[in-house]
Amino acid sequence: MTNRTSLFTDHYELTMLQAALAGGHADRRCVFEAFTRRLPEGRRYGVVAGTGRFLDALADFTFGPEEIDFLRETKVVNEQTLQWLTDYRFSGDIWGYAEGECYFPGSPLLIVESTFAEGVILETLLLSILNHDSAVAAAASRMTATAGDRPCIEMGSRRTHEESAVAAARAAYIAGFGSTSNLEAGRRHGIPTRGTAAHSFTLLHDSEREAFAAQLQSLGLDTTLLVDTYDVTAAVELAVELAGPGLGGVRLDSGDLVSQAHEVRAQLDGLGARDTRIVVTSDLDEFAIAALQAAPVDAYGVGTRVVTGSGAPAAGMVYKLVSREGADGKFEGVAKASKDKASVGGRKHALRRRNSMGVAHEERIGIDITPTDDGDDRDLLVQLVSDGEVQVPTDAHTAREHHTASRAELPTKGLRLSQGEPAIRTVYEDEASRTEVEGD
Amino acid sequence: MTNRTSLFTDHYELTMLQAALAGGHADRRCVFEAFTRRLPEGRRYGVVAGTGRFLDALADFTFGPEEIDFLRETKVVNEQTLQWLTDYRFSGDIWGYAEGECYFPGSPLLIVESTFAEGVILETLLLSILNHDSAVAAAASRMTATAGDRPCIEMGSRRTHEESAVAAARAAYIAGFGSTSNLEAGRRHGIPTRGTAAHSFTLLHDSEREAFAAQLQSLGLDTTLLVDTYDVTAAVELAVELAGPGLGGVRLDSGDLVSQAHEVRAQLDGLGARDTRIVVTSDLDEFAIAALQAAPVDAYGVGTRVVTGSGAPAAGMVYKLVSREGADGKFEGVAKASKDKASVGGRKHALRRRNSMGVAHEERIGIDITPTDDGDDRDLLVQLVSDGEVQVPTDAHTAREHHTASRAELPTKGLRLSQGEPAIRTVYEDEASRTEVEGD
Repeated sequence: MTNRTSLFTDHYELTMLQAALAGGHADRRCVFEAFTRRLPEGRRYGVVAGTGRFLDALADFTFGPEEIDFLRETKVVNEQTLQWLTDYRFSGDIWGYAEGECYFPGSPLLIVESTFAEGVILETLLLSILNHDSAVAAAASRMTATAGDRPCIEMGSRRTHEESAVAAARAAYIAGFGSTSNLEAGRRHGIPTRGTAAHSFTLLHDSEREAFAAQLQSLGLDTTLLVDTYDVTAAVELAVELAGPGLGGVRLDSGDLVSQAHEVRAQLDGLGARDTRIVVTSDLDEFAIAALQAAPVDAYGVGTRVVTGSGAPAAGMVYKLVSREGADGKFEGVAKASKDKASVGGRKHALRRRNSMGVAHEERIGIDITPTDDGDDRDLLVQLVSDGEVQVPTDAHTAREHHTASRAELPTKGLRLSQGEPAIRTVYEDEASRTEVEGD
Repeated sequence: MTNRTSLFTDHYELTMLQAALAGGHADRRCVFEAFTRRLPEGRRYGVVAGTGRFLDALADFTFGPEEIDFLRETKVVNEQTLQWLTDYRFSGDIWGYAEGECYFPGSPLLIVESTFAEGVILETLLLSILNHDSAVAAAASRMTATAGDRPCIEMGSRRTHEESAVAAARAAYIAGFGSTSNLEAGRRHGIPTRGTAAHSFTLLHDSEREAFAAQLQSLGLDTTLLVDTYDVTAAVELAVELAGPGLGGVRLDSGDLVSQAHEVRAQLDGLGARDTRIVVTSDLDEFAIAALQAAPVDAYGVGTRVVTGSGAPAAGMVYKLVSREGADGKFEGVAKASKDKASVGGRKHALRRRNSMGVAHEERIGIDITPTDDGDDRDLLVQLVSDGEVQVPTDAHTAREHHTASRAELPTKGLRLSQGEPAIRTVYEDEASRTEVEGD
């Protein structure tokens, strides 16, 4: 097994490559663009995540003997194409929104400038990573925005594919989660890992007393005890009896979390355990977090809903050829006409228009032109790859900082959880007239 | 980078292990069970998938120097625990439903019999794989059941994590899909791969004529041409003009697919291309397939909705300690009391009760007993692992055959797409009285 990423690719990309090589246009210079036509229903902003993972995966996007043998044996493509793939290494340029950036319908999230052949075969890998990671980040960002200063802990690994789990932990961290339960995410991406205890640990023992004592003995007073295996009130009483008022935390994982949080807080305070934290888990999402914000809760553990994008498990990004070299050697915008899936041709440039207070009010997208900066605007496209070489950091920490700054620019209505329009409007501007065309 | 799977694990499993090792109960014999309390809303059956992947992953669930170093540096667990992990290799027994089996609320899908220590640390990996793969398989099975003899092609790679995409292609294949677009799924799991062409291929060329000619020239007449980049009627006309009546297929990817399929079929037939297939794609799911069944369509390409579980991206399985050795050395059933998340203690056995025609009518689950076979029933639990050694094939082809047979046993109402109750009821039976307890 290799770490090559080149077969995370749809069959048709390689057959298109074959046809283009045979037909003579494989080397035409092209511009491909990843964007989304709309946000998931009711969402007010998206969050770019996965860019760093894509750039890392790009370095491993090569075809070695194992990949070539497979493609030859299964007759996916012909020998001319196999030869081309053997020599392949992406040598073009890639521009894109910085990882962690908020985005809107039509935002040109990733722009690949290369020959047709070099760019077309990246489609699946690029979209897989961006669609997954951005879906998680968008959901996570709504959760952390709602949770405010209270930390969110990502603990959804068991509800998604084992590798998705690692990527989801990274995406959630970028969107403001403080830690994850996933150890591989800790190792691979340097994200802090955290854990409490499961019901099985209590049930292993002959009594809850024995279980709590064993956990405290081994993990210390700062551990978090799970108190809802049998009776919450009795378990909290027992926990403080065994640990004293210095107990780190208790976890509630079932029942009416709002009323229980109030009851447990009162009980803990009554026992003198005023600094003991209350961690709540159990099917939390951004709405449940909102409902708990007035309750005395110290941290939210979020599972299924964050790793599955809280109802929107894929970000809906597509990757389209938007411009290419013509027979005369000049670039021309191209777009398909399919009514319900139209795309906007041309190489895009993008500014986030901000008012003098730094509040964003418009996504201004120039088609083959750079929109005029009116003084407070922010250029959104960063050169990520130059002649095949990655130009930016690909770590989650940098992206996390960027997300914090980007989200802080949104108008307050953009952070509402209720269904609504995108937080800012998308406006296209083109060369001929610099007329403004409202986004779809 | 290693292929070890041991860090696809939640932090708390290792800290529980540490506390259990220190507390002295780590070696208690235990029974863990993976099951689901309910099916996704309105679904009538679930489909077990991922069992084979889990068994393969189990062989790689070891802690090598890289994993131990990470755990030491980040102080996740103490030296005693690291030593134990260094020596770890699962040595217990695992029973479970055969991969591809249909299941219902409470079905004991996987039963792990081992010490607490050996079984508890498998939780995350086991659930990640089963929850993801089963979610995809359940959605895919509804699609293939609805599509009948028409082949379904899985092409959702771009809408899910790149590794999930491979697993999703495998799960969809188990549930009856005929092929996938994903090349890695072809290599890793031997699933047939297929592809057509994208709009970018047409847009690369100076005209649709030039694009079609290049594709036909390189890939042969049996290729499938994408005909909705500009005008469908003109494209179909052109396709047959260039390829002749022997053209393999055309793909429709936008618009009203039902009416277009009728129009294109009539046009193809009028041009003598009676055997040219019509492949439809574009946001298909089981309901869209049902709506297209009366239209002249030859194959369905399904993307986003199959890889994201068609609205239920995680199967909702949990992994619970249900029985363990007590102080007296005897096994006793254990269960937590949390009202909304109760579990049923005891080691389970399971039969699919069938009538004399072979139609399933009940999921009979024995708690610490084997339910009596009334002559037409089918034992559901297979020994998957014995003393740490895998006992069954782990490939997708075997599971696919099993799914076909298992689904064929369901009562016809179980295959309806409308929201409904599980196709058969779950009944528990226990030792003391052999009384029957209705499932939750």
